Amino acid sequence: MNMQRILYGVVGVLTGLLVSIVFFADFNQANAGDAAANKSKAEKVYVPYGEQDEYYMFASGGHSGQLFVYGVPSMRKIRTVPVFTPDPATGYGFDDKTKEMLGGYSWGDFHHPAVSETGGDYDGEFLFANDVGNNRVAAVDLSTFHTSDIMSLPNMGGPHAGVFVTENTEYIAMPTRFARPLAGEYAELDKYEEDYKGVVSMTTFDRKSKKFDLAYQIVLPPWSYDLSDAGKKMSKDWIVMTTYNTEFATTNLEINASQNDRDYIVMINWKRLEDEVANGNYNDVNGAKMIDPRDVPGAIFAIPVAKSPHGVDVTPDGERFIASGKLAPLMTVFSFEKAFEAIKSKDFKGEEFDIPVLPYEKVVEREVDPEGALGPLHTQFDDKGHAYNTMFISSEIVKWKVDSGEVIDRKPTYYSPGHASAAEGDTIEPDGKYIVALNKIAKDNFLSVGPSHPESMDLFDISGDKMEHLITAPTDPEPHYAQIVHRDKIKPKKIYDKDESRENSVWSQDDARIERKGDEVHVYGIAMRSKFVFDAKAERPDAVTVKQGDTVYFHMTNIDLDQDITHGFGINDYDLNFEIQPGQTNTLTFKADKAGTFPIYCTNFCSALHQEMSGYLLVEPK
Amino acid sequence: MNMQRILYGVVGVLTGLLVSIVFFADFNQANAGDAAANKSKAEKVYVPYGEQDEYYMFASGGHSGQLFVYGVPSMRKIRTVPVFTPDPATGYGFDDKTKEMLGGYSWGDFHHPAVSETGGDYDGEFLFANDVGNNRVAAVDLSTFHTSDIMSLPNMGGPHAGVFVTENTEYIAMPTRFARPLAGEYAELDKYEEDYKGVVSMTTFDRKSKKFDLAYQIVLPPWSYDLSDAGKKMSKDWIVMTTYNTEFATTNLEINASQNDRDYIVMINWKRLEDEVANGNYNDVNGAKMIDPRDVPGAIFAIPVAKSPHGVDVTPDGERFIASGKLAPLMTVFSFEKAFEAIKSKDFKGEEFDIPVLPYEKVVEREVDPEGALGPLHTQFDDKGHAYNTMFISSEIVKWKVDSGEVIDRKPTYYSPGHASAAEGDTIEPDGKYIVALNKIAKDNFLSVGPSHPESMDLFDISGDKMEHLITAPTDPEPHYAQIVHRDKIKPKKIYDKDESRENSVWSQDDARIERKGDEVHVYGIAMRSKFVFDAKAERPDAVTVKQGDTVYFHMTNIDLDQDITHGFGINDYDLNFEIQPGQTNTLTFKADKAGTFPIYCTNFCSALHQEMSGYLLVEPK
Repeated sequence: MNMQRILYGVVGVLTGLLVSIVFFADFNQANAGDAAANKSKAEKVYVPYGEQDEYYMFASGGHSGQLFVYGVPSMRKIRTVPVFTPDPATGYGFDDKTKEMLGGYSWGDFHHPAVSETGGDYDGEFLFANDVGNNRVAAVDLSTFHTSDIMSLPNMGGPHAGVFVTENTEYIAMPTRFARPLAGEYAELDKYEEDYKGVVSMTTFDRKSKKFDLAYQIVLPPWSYDLSDAGKKMSKDWIVMTTYNTEFATTNLEINASQNDRDYIVMINWKRLEDEVANGNYNDVNGAKMIDPRDVPGAIFAIPVAKSPHGVDVTPDGERFIASGKLAPLMTVFSFEKAFEAIKSKDFKGEEFDIPVLPYEKVVEREVDPEGALGPLHTQFDDKGHAYNTMFISSEIVKWKVDSGEVIDRKPTYYSPGHASAAEGDTIEPDGKYIVALNKIAKDNFLSVGPSHPESMDLFDISGDKMEHLITAPTDPEPHYAQIVHRDKIKPKKIYDKDESRENSVWSQDDARIERKGDEVHVYGIAMRSKFVFDAKAERPDAVTVKQGDTVYFHMTNIDLDQDITHGFGINDYDLNFEIQPGQTNTLTFKADKAGTFPIYCTNFCSALHQEMSGYLLVEPK
Repeated sequence: MNMQRILYGVVGVLTGLLVSIVFFADFNQANAGDAAANKSKAEKVYVPYGEQDEYYMFASGGHSGQLFVYGVPSMRKIRTVPVFTPDPATGYGFDDKTKEMLGGYSWGDFHHPAVSETGGDYDGEFLFANDVGNNRVAAVDLSTFHTSDIMSLPNMGGPHAGVFVTENTEYIAMPTRFARPLAGEYAELDKYEEDYKGVVSMTTFDRKSKKFDLAYQIVLPPWSYDLSDAGKKMSKDWIVMTTYNTEFATTNLEINASQNDRDYIVMINWKRLEDEVANGNYNDVNGAKMIDPRDVPGAIFAIPVAKSPHGVDVTPDGERFIASGKLAPLMTVFSFEKAFEAIKSKDFKGEEFDIPVLPYEKVVEREVDPEGALGPLHTQFDDKGHAYNTMFISSEIVKWKVDSGEVIDRKPTYYSPGHASAAEGDTIEPDGKYIVALNKIAKDNFLSVGPSHPESMDLFDISGDKMEHLITAPTDPEPHYAQIVHRDKIKPKKIYDKDESRENSVWSQDDARIERKGDEVHVYGIAMRSKFVFDAKAERPDAVTVKQGDTVYFHMTNIDLDQDITHGFGINDYDLNFEIQPGQTNTLTFKADKAGTFPIYCTNFCSALHQEMSGYLLVEPK
């Protein structure tokens, strides 16, 4: 074979390779439509066995009253944490401690979760929640994922516009949505402007005792306070709140509260009020230290804002706040610096209900109006100076530059997003990796489950220049807001400490005992794989005999100090069930008012002999 | 260029193509480790926007009391359907109808769902559920995904071993787990063998009225009935049940109920008993027609089975039943035909508690013992003659041939599976596409949520010769069993019919009215985007004024006949919330015992002006 032939051969081989490369490239391109895009999306949300999601998403459960915990990017729901509503799956509201904490309430309306912050960053220790339904605030301990405290707030009427926390969790703030006479007293609607009030509750939280305290309340005009945020860095002493119904409408708000061309953003200096309260300048109103900021110079201002605004969000650098008018297709960027200047120079445009009004044009930085984008509700942020706005009516997310107002990208959501939540989005340092739209309408996204549909959530990758929609996931009703926290910040316990000094705890089978005190029967028992021991010395250690009418206390300790070995404790026919997690002691108290024979059994599958983990409660007839 | 050169060139091109093909093949193979496998798995479970899952998975929610609806293969939870426990997210247990249905109970322990069957196939109309905690049976209407009836069952002690339905849903059967004196009366444990009973409830369900009836109950020895199944085709008149505690142990069952080398499968001919009951051969026991099958020749038999069995499952052809002994590493295949022959020839090996015992060796077809596979619990089936067994202790699924016992494949689960559910797995024609293992232990599969972990579920593709594990998904506690039904079989309504003759319904704003009858106030109102109208003629149509102590009835109709437009109805500070789905009428009744001013608001985000959808309840002080 001469050189020429070899050359032709080599050229041929190269040509063949080229052809084949072109062919394969074409082949890939031919598939590069939806199918290839879906493959790529599928991979981005798939978390294989042995790996974990990168982020926790803590989403409100709306009128379920509970906290929903998801993994991001898989969008898998990992846990329902009961907060405002009893939950037999975890015994919440059944054992004495959680029953007392719920105080007889059967539901809550959990809207806006807020993770505790240190220096403007999520510290991952606690999560706070508001109850719009029954005027409460709750704390979830993120070391155990248990609710540690619930406090009822006086003088409130549906604290929708919270919770949000100040930069170092000095306060957990909750403004009212519905104006209401103080203490909820009766007053005719004709006396709305005189007798009805808006109120902001400023609560503190002690991380050691894990309990709330109501520091003070702020009394305001009877506007509806819709959403709010705390300042950061240069604006850290301030809170901002949107209002609607500055018309003082008392009926048919759909029409009557949408009359004014502008409503207000209310700016309050909580630091000023804190000082005043410390100086005793407050009134005691139904147990709350009530302060009227209009009596405190420099404490409160109003800024006109586009009609019927919904969200207001402070930028990560704390320099601006962005409000969206749900009836005006506008995001408005306001400058704290400009506001401070206007305040300093007393550049007011009159007063509204005794609140100095800052001139709109003196505080506004710009209006952003993406063509055709309707119903802007909420703003989130990334690490590159972009804002992301949900558009309820036009069902999309709009990405734009905070500095210039330039619109960078728009992507559809499925459908009608309320809030969105960006990774670390409420901190001074958002991650810029993901955003999740929390949609109110699902239409036919998922298999039909009858006339009441699930809600839906859209996950977007926002790490690139353009947003990439990755997946639409269903959810039970109804996540209003969520915070997405990096997994490194959450440090949960896996087992409760073996604390032998703990009240009512028993750590050895031999110590299990039953003590009668009059008509009270106290069972100090243990749960372990695969039995209950109530009385070590009895012929049948797993049977308890009481008299009809006795009050029975089951103090149970789970002595299986192994991860994931939770025992349940159900009493058949007695409508009772609670749970004891590894190393935990819990008490169930009830009156044995029904005579008979009642099987007791472990309700949480714990071992191969879980079915055998049972006993009897015998109630002798009177 | 001469022919030779062309030839060399062509050979070269072909060589190049070959090289390139080999190269690309190598390239693919180089990536063919976990990463490529995960890509493929990711694609198999990813359901892009615009598409829907192929199957519904209806999973029990365990001691949550609820039904969980998932999509398969995405494993996304689409809906929690409340069954035994109140649920403010959907107003379940708050409106009059569902509150009455729950009868004051605060939880249930939902173990085994069963979809209604026609001809041994899921017909997709209803789903039935048992409550182990409070001895109830429930039906979910799969046209609305609402619970349509709950019936309390007398004489039961934790009906664990159900529900299962006969071939044409003639009966929904539930055997007791805990022996208990009839009517739950008091009886000392020393009198266990005399006074404690096992009972099977045989209920019927009327598809038109959507209500249960208790047809009859079967009284049995005080063994624990663990799981059960109905025959199919040639065995359709029979039910089979596993037992444990044939030792009659009354304490420490972990040890004492695990003494006998063999427990029993109980075979009952429900058709024989049905005839006897029709002939009046029963006793009335606390309102139930109680029949003792031992008094009816040919109605009941016992078959020895490997120690402490758990599951028993009838093969799709109805010819065999397979029982698994959780303390013996065996699956045992029994033949109905052999059993029938033994019965016919009266080939008994004595009696146990007056039940004729069929000799094990006369009924058994084979024992299957996969080496090292421990803790077999339950069996599912495909369309190719294979059985799939969950192994709780060795955490795996074993695939084997029913005909030969040959083990085909074994795959790990993460971890400790209880039941598994195969697509259409309980029918006469399983699909053979997917199986889901319902695991009891999750360990570190997911982001930690504290000492109480989620449960986990493993989805496998079983369409090939070997099972392929696709994804591990978290779930709230605690799915015990599930049925996977093809989406074509479920036909939900999307909107309630506009039925103008419906009691208390109002279909026009103008007809909204308030009627007082003594101290009862009846509000006949409407909910629509974005307002409530209670009294069309009032100055404030969305306000209701009553007197302290009045009983208030809110009869509300949602006149938004649009898909996915559900309205909520919460009363602030009154611990009340219910829901009205599109076209639905619901009533909320309560005593206005607290005077004051209480905002009313829509709790289910419905429109851009959802926040404005509110009103007031004014309760005048006495």
